[in-house]
Amino acid sequence: MAVEDRLAKLGITLPQAAAPVASYVPVVVTGNMAFVSGQLPFVYGQVMVGRLGDDVSVEQGAAAARACGLMIIAQLVSAGLADRVDRIVKLGAFVTSTADFTDQPKVANGASDLMSEIFGDAGTHARAAVGVPSLPLGACVEVDAIITLKD
Amino acid sequence: MAVEDRLAKLGITLPQAAAPVASYVPVVVTGNMAFVSGQLPFVYGQVMVGRLGDDVSVEQGAAAARACGLMIIAQLVSAGLADRVDRIVKLGAFVTSTADFTDQPKVANGASDLMSEIFGDAGTHARAAVGVPSLPLGACVEVDAIITLKD
Amino acid sequence: MAVEDRLAKLGITLPQAAAPVASYVPVVVTGNMAFVSGQLPFVYGQVMVGRLGDDVSVEQGAAAARACGLMIIAQLVSAGLADRVDRIVKLGAFVTSTADFTDQPKVANGASDLMSEIFGDAGTHARAAVGVPSLPLGACVEVDAIITLKD
Repeated sequence: MAVEDRLAKLGITLPQAAAPVASYVPVVVTGNMAFVSGQLPFVYGQVMVGRLGDDVSVEQGAAAARACGLMIIAQLVSAGLADRVDRIVKLGAFVTSTADFTDQPKVANGASDLMSEIFGDAGTHARAAVGVPSLPLGACVEVDAIITLKD
Repeated sequence: MAVEDRLAKLGITLPQAAAPVASYVPVVVTGNMAFVSGQLPFVYGQVMVGRLGDDVSVEQGAAAARACGLMIIAQLVSAGLADRVDRIVKLGAFVTSTADFTDQPKVANGASDLMSEIFGDAGTHARAAVGVPSLPLGACVEVDAIITLKD
Repeated sequence: MAVEDRLAKLGITLPQAAAPVASYVPVVVTGNMAFVSGQLPFVYGQVMVGRLGDDVSVEQGAAAARACGLMIIAQLVSAGLADRVDRIVKLGAFVTSTADFTDQPKVANGASDLMSEIFGDAGTHARAAVGVPSLPLGACVEVDAIITLKD
């Protein structure tokens, strides 16, 4: 099933692919690999801000990570790559955290679960999830991706 | 020499390959590249917790990074990949740090030195080592890896 | 135009390629990909230290990111790879930040803009920029890179 059909069937509306907030591009394809820039959690054009362990709950953080994942997919759609996904290879999840917040995995699952939901087995990936003190625009989560493509 | 023979000769016992703490897999192979998820420092099933610059010394941090490296090797063994390692290409080392701790390289060396010890020249890698405010399960170090494989 | 000619034309002097501060190598080449270790902002042999949001301005941070980018290029030159650059694929920018500093993109642009300046379209890359509490040697910025090479 085409990715956009799959999204429609699940009732998921993609955000508009965000323009880079700086001097880079959202996706670079080299050979059969696509490197997706770190994506922020935009919902209806507003970035989800705050800090896990303080003013953002684990559930809200996971929703933000899911929003980052949706933006990764929106970037793939925008680049004409969504139906060429062979494997979501690696996600990097950066979670704005207090010094004592240690549930980054539960937060990052918001993006990971989305990939399985949309891409099935091809969405099963390696991952690193870490805390950070702060992110661009005050975002509570940022996720980047390495993806392999079919011809 | 097979990796498990080399470990035995050095008197090194691998930890049990840890299950992912969330919705992802420990290793993804694509073409001749293996991406290993961020690994935490488990010793006898307990994660090494704390913060460099506070309650964890550089020596303890390096031991934790080594434990992360052992877990990377344990994941390779578990996936049947350990004897196919062509090159440890890149390690990413995330070190739970106070704002004034700047010896992340000495900590990360615990993982880097292990790779040379086990894989010789093939263990010589590129690396990024950075501080983070917090990590999953309260770990003091997390290390991920990109590795190329022989047929 | 050869990279060193391009640098000369722009009046840019590369720093001396820094030795790794630990047990790893500056660049690993595998197939047509080069992985460059995290580079610190050395200017005349001194690392640019401090924290964005505190004692380092956005302009100074961008200058430091540019210095990291120059060190990436210096490492490529030192490894005989500078004129084989096919594409700067991905930059990872780690910015030493207070908890309320959110202009990491403007800082990281110092490295990103340099890549376009030197490599033109081939310098256009994917990127992730995040805050960190601390970096090796007290550096205010660290940047690593994934690059593809021509034969």
